[in-house]
Amino acid sequence: MVVTVNENFNLIQNNYLFVEIARRVDEYQKENPDVDLIKMGIGDVTRPLAKSVIKAFHDAVDEMGDPETFRGYGPEQGYDFLIEDIIENDYKPLGIDLRNSEVFISDGAKCDTGNFQELFSQDNVIAVTDPVYPVYVDSNVMAGRSGKAGDDGFYEKIVYLPATAENNFVPALPQEDVDIIYLCYPNNPTGTTLTHEQLKEWVDYAKENDAIILFDAAYEAFIRTSDVPHSIYEIEGAKEVAVEFKSYSKVAGFTGTRCAYCVVPEELKINDSNGNKVGLTALWNRRQSTKFNGVSYPVQRTAQAIYTPEGKKEIKENLDYYVENAKLIRESLIDMGLDVYGGENSPYIWFKTPDGIDSWSFFNLLLNDAHVVSTPGVGFGPSGEGYIRLTAFNTYENTKKAMERIKQLNL
Amino acid sequence: MVVTVNENFNLIQNNYLFVEIARRVDEYQKENPDVDLIKMGIGDVTRPLAKSVIKAFHDAVDEMGDPETFRGYGPEQGYDFLIEDIIENDYKPLGIDLRNSEVFISDGAKCDTGNFQELFSQDNVIAVTDPVYPVYVDSNVMAGRSGKAGDDGFYEKIVYLPATAENNFVPALPQEDVDIIYLCYPNNPTGTTLTHEQLKEWVDYAKENDAIILFDAAYEAFIRTSDVPHSIYEIEGAKEVAVEFKSYSKVAGFTGTRCAYCVVPEELKINDSNGNKVGLTALWNRRQSTKFNGVSYPVQRTAQAIYTPEGKKEIKENLDYYVENAKLIRESLIDMGLDVYGGENSPYIWFKTPDGIDSWSFFNLLLNDAHVVSTPGVGFGPSGEGYIRLTAFNTYENTKKAMERIKQLNL
Repeated sequence: MVVTVNENFNLIQNNYLFVEIARRVDEYQKENPDVDLIKMGIGDVTRPLAKSVIKAFHDAVDEMGDPETFRGYGPEQGYDFLIEDIIENDYKPLGIDLRNSEVFISDGAKCDTGNFQELFSQDNVIAVTDPVYPVYVDSNVMAGRSGKAGDDGFYEKIVYLPATAENNFVPALPQEDVDIIYLCYPNNPTGTTLTHEQLKEWVDYAKENDAIILFDAAYEAFIRTSDVPHSIYEIEGAKEVAVEFKSYSKVAGFTGTRCAYCVVPEELKINDSNGNKVGLTALWNRRQSTKFNGVSYPVQRTAQAIYTPEGKKEIKENLDYYVENAKLIRESLIDMGLDVYGGENSPYIWFKTPDGIDSWSFFNLLLNDAHVVSTPGVGFGPSGEGYIRLTAFNTYENTKKAMERIKQLNL
Repeated sequence: MVVTVNENFNLIQNNYLFVEIARRVDEYQKENPDVDLIKMGIGDVTRPLAKSVIKAFHDAVDEMGDPETFRGYGPEQGYDFLIEDIIENDYKPLGIDLRNSEVFISDGAKCDTGNFQELFSQDNVIAVTDPVYPVYVDSNVMAGRSGKAGDDGFYEKIVYLPATAENNFVPALPQEDVDIIYLCYPNNPTGTTLTHEQLKEWVDYAKENDAIILFDAAYEAFIRTSDVPHSIYEIEGAKEVAVEFKSYSKVAGFTGTRCAYCVVPEELKINDSNGNKVGLTALWNRRQSTKFNGVSYPVQRTAQAIYTPEGKKEIKENLDYYVENAKLIRESLIDMGLDVYGGENSPYIWFKTPDGIDSWSFFNLLLNDAHVVSTPGVGFGPSGEGYIRLTAFNTYENTKKAMERIKQLNL
């Protein structure tokens, strides 16, 4: 025999989206070194870590330099000090009770949403809204659940649930038989949300159809409207059908610091092939214990500082800053006569390109003529064609300048 | 249809070893709160981070608090500043040239060695030395490459290469047809090493048999003997057949700080089912870009400090400290008349239990009667039965005390 490659990797359609954008931007910048690009493509923050968060980081680093307080391996699942603060602050106020054993600290929601599919058998059918965060699709392609991609960009075995202006970005329940549904609300990339009633339909669907929902709530902190649920567990019975992913990346500017968590309730049990019920909490615990060694101790202490009164106040100021940017982008684009979505409970603004121009062409136009880096909607899936995503994570000054530059294009 | 579980998880034989040890120790400590246990089980360090390393950590944290120097998402593969220092310090002095694109920074060798199997097709045959670090086996069990475990503890589809006192801990080349070979030298758990000549046999075998070697060099920094290679790439042609995993956990006390790296040379190409060659560097890059978001920026700066003249001096002091402990353990156990291995180029000491008592019974004896936490050899695989692993990572004082306590057992 001969060692052979996992050929599912060949089925991936192109470069990871943000790597491809970075490549194009680098190329442009090399050819045009004097151009002052404004980056509103990748969802990366620009505000520094909050003061009290930095203080906690320093304190924990000091602990690591002192033999009395030094910490080696921590629990793979994360330290209880952080898990308890998460439950107390992110869930109790919503009326949701969680056990410590149901919360798993990780180094990113990308890792968690990419890895979680390992717990399922290979023949499960995946459903994603379209457009969608590429990690859900690509990690399942690598795992052999996708089949081949057609010329239309759709993988043959994945069920796509379009979310477009035509259905007001509320995807219809699947007509096909699906097992694992990825939902992200507030949505990446469209910036749209589901109401409590709309999310309840998905939970009910999952219950009736023995499906599971992998719910990505990475942008929850941007919710400002009262009818939008902050957690899927606000929906009755959701613990029996849903895993929830959260991240500190956007909440507290942790994109370079790396900390996130996911919730896997003990009530969440799925079938083995004999029809016996298997609890996913224990399974995820086993996966993490085997292939992960926990998050850096100082980083966990840093995340904990977000939950102090001072930390809460400071990160709210940062969030409000980005919310103001989102409002500015949204209103500016509407003023230009564009069809604009999102940007109200989300740092993402999604808009239709003018005159039906395709996403990558408009990406190039914004790059070359406005010196603004965006994300082409089609990079998130076929239904994203003809759309562009902008993010609210740049500075207010740059955001304003970018809007003026786009306005001068006279779209 | 119904969502179903990855049943390969059911094939795992028991709890992850170190979780099981922690559970037993917790239980004992609860029942005996006044007993002063000395922990020499899990390979966790006790010396704090070095001074210059702590300084670099603080400096990088300060950068994260300043809008001018704040860093968001970094490259998934790691920052070039660290990659370049790795190549310059860990490889150039050995006569090994590497490209930046061949080095991938991660949050741990456990993650890397656990995840790397994703790049291979499911029907590849895995070979492990026995005893072995459990992650290699368990990650392949989860991926469906193991088949069932027999009563003897061996998985039916995995090829085991015994390393015992009988063959002087030099495993024989496989008789069966194998595709992926996990090697760890200096070895965990036995603390033994391979010479340049012995390692060359494996590289030659891999070349002749179209196999690949996943080489775990996490304990390289403990090598003190000149005939032991520091990298598999010291062997001619190894770049065509081997991936190398390195970790800062033991080198610089990063078990709680989290940083490691792996090397995937461009020369390393394997077959797809049509016999076309596929480069693993690009494949691993794609895997990491999709499912990983890079290591915390301050942590990468912290790791970089290890390569400064001051950092090198300080971590050498820490390493020498552990080397002294290893020597003390080794010599003490030999004085007690035990058969002792390792502990010379390794922080691990491996010894035969007296009178053929089984590993877990002797683990319990050491726990109950000497109040020393060890690791039962059988936890690393069937050929580890009748052996015990001790680690040199406790303080010198505790190590000495532990040796005195074991001596009083009059084994």
